[in-house]
Parts: sequence; structure tokens; C-alpha cells
Amino acid sequence: MTFPSDLLRHAHALADAAAAQSMAWFRQPLDIITKADESPVTLADRAAETAMREILGRALPADGIYGEEHGATQLDAGRIWVLDPIDGTRSFITGSPLWGTLIGVLEGGRVTLGMVDMPVLGERWVGQAGLGATRNGLAVRASACTAIDQARIVTTSPDIFNAADWQAFDALSRRCAMRRFGGDCYGYAQLAGGTIDLVVETGLQPYDYLGPAGLIEAAGGVVTDWQGQPLGLQSDGRVVAAATPELHRQALAALAV
Amino acid sequence: MTFPSDLLRHAHALADAAAAQSMAWFRQPLDIITKADESPVTLADRAAETAMREILGRALPADGIYGEEHGATQLDAGRIWVLDPIDGTRSFITGSPLWGTLIGVLEGGRVTLGMVDMPVLGERWVGQAGLGATRNGLAVRASACTAIDQARIVTTSPDIFNAADWQAFDALSRRCAMRRFGGDCYGYAQLAGGTIDLVVETGLQPYDYLGPAGLIEAAGGVVTDWQGQPLGLQSDGRVVAAATPELHRQALAALAV
Repeated sequence: MTFPSDLLRHAHALADAAAAQSMAWFRQPLDIITKADESPVTLADRAAETAMREILGRALPADGIYGEEHGATQLDAGRIWVLDPIDGTRSFITGSPLWGTLIGVLEGGRVTLGMVDMPVLGERWVGQAGLGATRNGLAVRASACTAIDQARIVTTSPDIFNAADWQAFDALSRRCAMRRFGGDCYGYAQLAGGTIDLVVETGLQPYDYLGPAGLIEAAGGVVTDWQGQPLGLQSDGRVVAAATPELHRQALAALAV
Repeated sequence: MTFPSDLLRHAHALADAAAAQSMAWFRQPLDIITKADESPVTLADRAAETAMREILGRALPADGIYGEEHGATQLDAGRIWVLDPIDGTRSFITGSPLWGTLIGVLEGGRVTLGMVDMPVLGERWVGQAGLGATRNGLAVRASACTAIDQARIVTTSPDIFNAADWQAFDALSRRCAMRRFGGDCYGYAQLAGGTIDLVVETGLQPYDYLGPAGLIEAAGGVVTDWQGQPLGLQSDGRVVAAATPELHRQALAALAV
């Protein structure tokens, strides 16, 4: 049996190890390779994931791993670590501080721990099921926003949507009090901290959304796919994260039109 | 006569004073008022500009001031300080670190000093005509990118453009190697630092673009309006900033179609 405090300790160790690798490369000339999905991937990305996997291999060898760079191992394990060493590689290679390391822990198909670590900002956001969410150890909570017309919404870019999904997002976001673009994973941290009320995205992978989902749920928010189904390793990559159940319900309805 | 080193010292004092005010309000509940142009303005914005004006009033009483919050004074002076206490108020009120204090010094109609200060990031970017550009005192330089198809472009949001300007921006940015949204004034800092090659925006005010323009020109970049005219207090608010003259020329041509 691994206690929640032990899980958290391991997650901190992973994030520390990832940051040591990624920060060494930040704003250095990089050997950029274009993957099939056109997301730029860097040496830093790979080195950071390798460092995290080495720690897990030593400390929790029975656990499964689902990582962006080095694939999946032992997905039949009772606990799976879902790792994105550098979420926001485009931010990273353009010198923006808004990239992060994402760690999600799946147990019995549910996210029990989510971490969004922002090394340049020096902000580590953590959520644990039943234990609440923190930013650098201080409690945070999603906002009390319950209405679309009072909501502040963010998404990374119009370019992540296909035409139909953009139409749905555009219509929803124009009803909001404010819409913002950019930020990659930081939008989920803002939601957990109560300064953003809605994040709607598409085209995400499990390592992009499971860490943030664990954080947001622990902060009192609600995260599902666009059909309202819980997120897991098999979701279609469309994510709706909201500060409250009421706002989430309205956002789902708006996106379904 | 005021030496460039004295000007720089005054600019640092202004940025320090502005940051003391703005940081005290960052991530605190704010009394948000909607101005006629719908840009949210905060108590922090006003307090920060007041602090800067007090310093200038004492140290350089003959200088003119053109500020976002408290208007223009002595615009017939030989030197004018163009001040934006919090550029990116939407970033500010949504808890994003990508807002900054912008300071531009106009002498004889030319920008001789430009500062982009990012208090949350702890990054102060400064350019002085003939003296180069720095980030926290270390020399920076715009990239050597000379071709649109190799350029990384950024703009704050699709929502800043009217329909015709969006069409022009969209066509240009789709030819680039990468396009990014978000970041407000930080895009100009990235350009000065060589990690972004093009920034194209519209709807800006002199206090939004003159500080960044001074920084970018000192870093070796080129900044004009969409017609290729130098920026001043009377520009129409459409800005093209590029890492090199070649890239700038191509961007202007693309936007003119």
C-alpha cells in the first residue's frame, strides 16, 4: 500500500528531476525534430521523461507508465503514472515561460493525483483526490462562477480546433465575459487558482489532460470530455474544464449545439 | 543635458515603483471597471502610473508624459515618457504572469529608450538607441530570420483584429513556420531575445507600442506601422515588428495584399 503522502513525495521527485533537465535546455539552441503530428519535440523533452522514468523504475517498479516521449509500459498495473515532461513545447522553444511538466496518477481508472509544475515561474500546482489543491503548498480553489456570461474562458489557440469544433467553441466563448488565447497547460492552473473559469480544448492526449484533471477536480472544479464523460486513457482528446458543476453543465450544452 | 545612463536610471526607478504597486494587487480581488474601449482597468494600473508620474515630476519636471491612465502632459517637451503601467490587464486579472510595465522615451520624435518590465517573471528588458538591448543586464539580440516560412510569429489574440486586418494577418501567419497567440507585451520581449521572429498586432495605443519599439530596435529588429512608417504618438495602432529588415519587408508586403 502506498499512502497519498508517499505518492505526493514521488511526484515531487519526478517534477524536480524533470525540471533539472528541462531548465538546462530552456532558451538554449535546440535540435528540433518534427514528429508525425507536427508537435515540436526537443532533446529536453526526452531527457526529462527519461529522468522521471528512472525514478519510477527504482521506487515503484510495479507501476505502469504512460508517457509522451517513451510510450506506455505495464498499463495493466493498478497504478499508472501519466507523464508529459514538457507540455507546451512551442512555448518552450519560443522562450515563453508558460510550459510545464504534467503528472497524473491513475488508480482504478480515476485520477488520484494531478500535478502541473511550471519550472520557469517557480509554481508547483498539486491536487490530490479528497485532499484539495495547492500552489506551492498554499491551498487554492476554483472560482464560484456559475454562469457563462460571467465566465473567463481560455484555450491555447484557434489552431487546435477542427472547423466544427471551432464553431462550437467560438459560439460558447463569445458568450463569456472574457476570452483569452495562449497559455497551454497554465490555463488549467489558472482554473484551479480561481482566476479562470472555463478551459475548453481539443486534440489533447492523455498526458496533456490527466495531470491537469487531477489538479482541477481537487480544486473543486469539474473536468470531462465534450460529452460529459470522465477522462481516461481512451478519451477523444476534447476537454471541458469548469470551475463549478453548474458552469460545466452549461458549457457542455453550449458545445453540443 | 541628460546622459543615456541617467535616463536608464530613471527608467529603472519608474519600473521599480510601478512593480511595487502592481505586485501588491496581483492575484488579489480587484475592483474591475469597464472603460469605454472595454479594456479592464484596475486600481493597480492607476496606482502604478501615479507612482511613476510622481518620480518624473520630481526628477525631470520639464519632461512630457503620455500615460495610459492619467493622460498627456507637456507633449511639447523635448523628451516625452510614454507609460503603460500594466500592459496586459486581462492577463493581470486572470492571474497570468504575462503582463508588464512598458516605458518608452521619445526624444525629437524618436524612441531612444524602451523598457519592457515583467515583474512576475523577474525579467526586465531594456533597449537604448545605439547601446543595444539587455535582459536583466545581459545582452540580447533579435534572431537572424530573413524568411516568412522560417519565422515564428505571435499576436495577442484573433480578437484584436477587424475582419480585413484578420484576413491579412491570417494569410501571413499561415505562411510562417509557427504561429502563437497570447502573451501581450511579452511577444515583443521574445522578439528582442531572438525566440520569436515576428509580432503583428492592431488596435494598439502609443503606450502599448513605443516602449517595445525602443527595445526591439536596440536589439537589431525593425518596427513600423503596417505601411512601413516609423511609430510615433500619431500612428494608427497597427504594428509590425520583425527580427530583420528582410523579414520586415516581406511581412509588410504580405499585409498589403
